[in-house]
Amino acid sequence: IAKRWNSTGKSIFSEMTALSNLHNAVNLGQGFPDFYGPTALLDAISKEVLSCHNQYAPSHGEAALRKEISYFVESTTGVIYDPETEITVTCGASEAIFCAINAFVNPGDRVLVFEPAFDIYYQAIANAGGEVVPVRLHAPDTPVGVRGGGWSIDWSEFDAACSQGFSVAIFNSPHNPTGKVFSEEEIDRIASKILKKNAIVLSDEVYENMVYSPARHVSLCTLPKIQHLVVRISSAAKTFGFTGLKTGWVCAPAYLTDGVRLVHQATVFCTSPYTQLGLARVMENKEWFQNYLLSQNESYLKKRNFLKSILERAGFLVHNSEGTFFLTASYENLAGDISDIIYTKQLVETYKVTTIPLSAFYKQAPKSLPWIRFAFCKKEETLQSVADLLLNS
Amino acid sequence: IAKRWNSTGKSIFSEMTALSNLHNAVNLGQGFPDFYGPTALLDAISKEVLSCHNQYAPSHGEAALRKEISYFVESTTGVIYDPETEITVTCGASEAIFCAINAFVNPGDRVLVFEPAFDIYYQAIANAGGEVVPVRLHAPDTPVGVRGGGWSIDWSEFDAACSQGFSVAIFNSPHNPTGKVFSEEEIDRIASKILKKNAIVLSDEVYENMVYSPARHVSLCTLPKIQHLVVRISSAAKTFGFTGLKTGWVCAPAYLTDGVRLVHQATVFCTSPYTQLGLARVMENKEWFQNYLLSQNESYLKKRNFLKSILERAGFLVHNSEGTFFLTASYENLAGDISDIIYTKQLVETYKVTTIPLSAFYKQAPKSLPWIRFAFCKKEETLQSVADLLLNS
Ligand SMILES: CSCCC(=O)C(=O)O
Ligand SMILES: CSCCC(=O)C(=O)O
Repeated sequence: IAKRWNSTGKSIFSEMTALSNLHNAVNLGQGFPDFYGPTALLDAISKEVLSCHNQYAPSHGEAALRKEISYFVESTTGVIYDPETEITVTCGASEAIFCAINAFVNPGDRVLVFEPAFDIYYQAIANAGGEVVPVRLHAPDTPVGVRGGGWSIDWSEFDAACSQGFSVAIFNSPHNPTGKVFSEEEIDRIASKILKKNAIVLSDEVYENMVYSPARHVSLCTLPKIQHLVVRISSAAKTFGFTGLKTGWVCAPAYLTDGVRLVHQATVFCTSPYTQLGLARVMENKEWFQNYLLSQNESYLKKRNFLKSILERAGFLVHNSEGTFFLTASYENLAGDISDIIYTKQLVETYKVTTIPLSAFYKQAPKSLPWIRFAFCKKEETLQSVADLLLNS
Repeated sequence: IAKRWNSTGKSIFSEMTALSNLHNAVNLGQGFPDFYGPTALLDAISKEVLSCHNQYAPSHGEAALRKEISYFVESTTGVIYDPETEITVTCGASEAIFCAINAFVNPGDRVLVFEPAFDIYYQAIANAGGEVVPVRLHAPDTPVGVRGGGWSIDWSEFDAACSQGFSVAIFNSPHNPTGKVFSEEEIDRIASKILKKNAIVLSDEVYENMVYSPARHVSLCTLPKIQHLVVRISSAAKTFGFTGLKTGWVCAPAYLTDGVRLVHQATVFCTSPYTQLGLARVMENKEWFQNYLLSQNESYLKKRNFLKSILERAGFLVHNSEGTFFLTASYENLAGDISDIIYTKQLVETYKVTTIPLSAFYKQAPKSLPWIRFAFCKKEETLQSVADLLLNS
């Protein structure tokens, strides 16, 4: 196995899901809904399977879908991307991230990453031969859950990273795993430095449609000063609650899109036309789509509040997620002296509840980090069963 | 854009398809059928869209599909791969190739490639920082079309490549673009050298089910002496005639599978469950599957013969494809003095017939190469229209 893969192991998400299944536990680890997204979408895909050309899609994506993506991004951000030269359909946001990093990172290049971070960033950077420059988000002080008291950027680390230099930055808001939604002020400060470095920034916005008031999602692409440096990534999986769709998209100025498309044509070449065309079909129905997103957001807010109250009753210190479908919680008061990896294993084995240890989201995790991540994209009854497991056993 | 992409351009397949559409030409370029594969498969996928979990598949693939792949590979080669540790489902053979190369090739490593070759090999090698060691297949001497007079390995180049050394080899039989099916003797001689070098060999066998008697497909994995070094790649797209399925698979010993899976988890993580489960459903029906493959092969043989006769009447020298759904033909007697790139452009513009210039399949094409590739995976009426266009205009 090539050297660049030496320090990569099996995905923590696969591992925890396998462990969860083994123990017949409730899986709040890997981020996938256990309820159905809109059946209208499944109907549309199912029809396309029976009626579309069923051959290669254009490598950069079916025209009908790129058109709807352009419309959708414009309607939420005000920024217009040209479907022909600035939008690329990928095999999920994962492939989008992998392609963007492998398109822009040379061996030895420094890549700024806010930690904790989604593990595929590290893997893609390793494949490209890049070097991670981590900037920590510090865990909230107790009492947690108060806006302002949330996961906070280590600005001195950020400034140090800027003096050291970097050619690519990865930014992710709403943020996995913390649920942090970066504020306008934070984003502006980060953007200014990226501009100064003339660095390309991958903006992973897959949770753009899961933001809980008063938090507000600000897309990096809306800042005129760095728009020309932004590679914006989002996906249908999160947006529609079906992680099996494996359809993501990249919006970026043409000169950056060219790079992403070169890698994409070598990794998967294209994705299946029926999924793309089915998505285009439902996204065409703008009113339906908007209503769906609003009701999904409301429903996630309820789930967040419900899980939060359960975890607080169980003795966790809970950070009040401002976005995504994840909650981070500290078990400091329950078992503060054991590692998060051992603690999550115990939770599965003893309580039958599966979570993700936060250390999995670091290149090099801090020594003491009594935090774990819970996914709340689950049916009410699933969350209720977690209450029963944590509170009554 | 990262340096390793400097010498890569837009895929020749995308380019020629776009040009073909522009000129409203008959597209015998990119290799996709213009007829439908089995509707039973579409029915099965369509049903799975409406009824399956629709969330992430396991990263290495749905168990039901891995089981059928194992059965299928055993039934055609006699070799048993363990679905749990030795089989990985990918987003088409393209992603399988990309993952295998990025898993095993370190920067500076030499990779043996028989040229002409499918262009994604070069792109994946470039991404991994590897160095291509080309071994040429020489174009057939005229008269072409006689077994023995086909595309032939340059053994002195092969021996030179072996003395130079390489750590990975890519082998592809039935061979795209030439339609060559390597003989048992050729395969054995190649395998012996690979064994001597202890090199990993990627065996791209996506055209395994399109082989025309008396040619016979010998899978590299059936040679006991190098089985432990073989990463065998195939795909549903070619097997079922729907290139939009984007489902490939990799069979390899567990220690090699581990590497492929590390990269796969970082590129796309997994592919859509409904396509995988639909495929499993039809592959379960062994008798149906076998009959389908037999009748597909017969039908391709007829198409090959029909296209060959058309091209010969038009004045081409045609190599009698032994496998795949491609034919290579020389235009030496028609316009021997112009480059294949200009000639294919003229064919589209003047005759409304789209092909692929053979130089697109080389890292560095030979100076004079009056050969082009035709895809014959087309309806009889499509091939008839090519006859009309080439013979009557
Ligand atoms: C690709 S598996 C990981 C899913 C996910 O986004 C998460 O759980 O963080
Ligand atoms: C991935 S596009 C290329 C299709 C193909 O296999 C070919 O035409 O050679």
